[in-house]
Amino acid sequence: MSQLPRVQNFTVSSDGFGAGEHQSPERPFGTADPGRLMAWLLATASLPDRAEPGGTRGLDDHLVRDFGNNIGAEIMGRNKFGPQRGPWTDHDWERWWGDEPPFHTPVFVLTHHARPSFSLSDTTFHFVDGEPTAVLRQACDAAEGKDVRLGGGATTIRQFLDADLVDTLHVVVAPLEIGAGARLWHSPDELLDRFHRDVVPSPSGVTDHVFWRK
Amino acid sequence: MSQLPRVQNFTVSSDGFGAGEHQSPERPFGTADPGRLMAWLLATASLPDRAEPGGTRGLDDHLVRDFGNNIGAEIMGRNKFGPQRGPWTDHDWERWWGDEPPFHTPVFVLTHHARPSFSLSDTTFHFVDGEPTAVLRQACDAAEGKDVRLGGGATTIRQFLDADLVDTLHVVVAPLEIGAGARLWHSPDELLDRFHRDVVPSPSGVTDHVFWRK
Repeated sequence: MSQLPRVQNFTVSSDGFGAGEHQSPERPFGTADPGRLMAWLLATASLPDRAEPGGTRGLDDHLVRDFGNNIGAEIMGRNKFGPQRGPWTDHDWERWWGDEPPFHTPVFVLTHHARPSFSLSDTTFHFVDGEPTAVLRQACDAAEGKDVRLGGGATTIRQFLDADLVDTLHVVVAPLEIGAGARLWHSPDELLDRFHRDVVPSPSGVTDHVFWRK
Repeated sequence: MSQLPRVQNFTVSSDGFGAGEHQSPERPFGTADPGRLMAWLLATASLPDRAEPGGTRGLDDHLVRDFGNNIGAEIMGRNKFGPQRGPWTDHDWERWWGDEPPFHTPVFVLTHHARPSFSLSDTTFHFVDGEPTAVLRQACDAAEGKDVRLGGGATTIRQFLDADLVDTLHVVVAPLEIGAGARLWHSPDELLDRFHRDVVPSPSGVTDHVFWRK
């Protein structure tokens, strides 16, 4: 497949977790504090749905601006989509994101449980069951020649890494520990057998890891 | 004016020069060695007109990919365009860039000497005389709602900085000295009265300075 997905702006703790345990409708990141984990993002001028103008326009903002650049579809795990587990009993609960999700493309949500597609603004959520290769094929078709973003969470990214179906990763390592939850890695060095890497300290206090295939 | 230009991927030496003295048709950067000054750029996968596939896809490449992102026009100084001085006696000499210039938009070349516009592939060069504000207005009109890139050289960027007509700057400081030539600054700290700044060490050995207006 010529069009492998990109991971962008995915944030993990210094101990490698993308979210804590005990996710709930009120706590998309479970025990982890999203205000601390995502502080680097929340400070940027390009944060989607910014409540007030302003914000930084340095390195972090530059990387945030690239989030949708030439992206035609996203693949995400079910736990990024929402807190429900098992069969979908509540179709009314539709989003963490308000009326204007930041994706603006088709989004393929991995789940073993069927659910009809629906749209919010210019984002359409499809619910798909299948191996990473098959889901990626669907997302590539929907992307119409553009790239596919692999949106997370950590478990979904691991699944695609294990299937060797990731082209590039931009992972933001935030300076806090979460302790338990959805783990991306024990150490970012785990990927060095298959990827080149740049490690870039951002003035905001996070460290950017940019991986590309060998 | 709501649409101030962006400086992107502009490279200077550690002593602040964008090019050396004694520019000639054979030496666009004069006494400075472009292979050393631009080594960071030449190594990237996104280098325009790359001779062979490959190249790095880390931080430097990320910044190179942003070169044309949402850009609708460029303004450049006459010495970036070519080595001639005074009235245009040689209209045949048209480019450093080969048949496919990396701009892909209208380009406004600052000069006191009139010359007809011409196109190479999807880049059209216009030759304009005027104050920065007037030239910027022309470029904004041509950009049709997109951003305007201020392409350099150092003297042109200084002119627009002195007129307070720059929105953001991404300047790459390369680890070599040039000694004399076209100077952007004595120290990047000169801009801190009017700009915020991120200083980012790239793994390639250059240091990125990202400025945005206070």
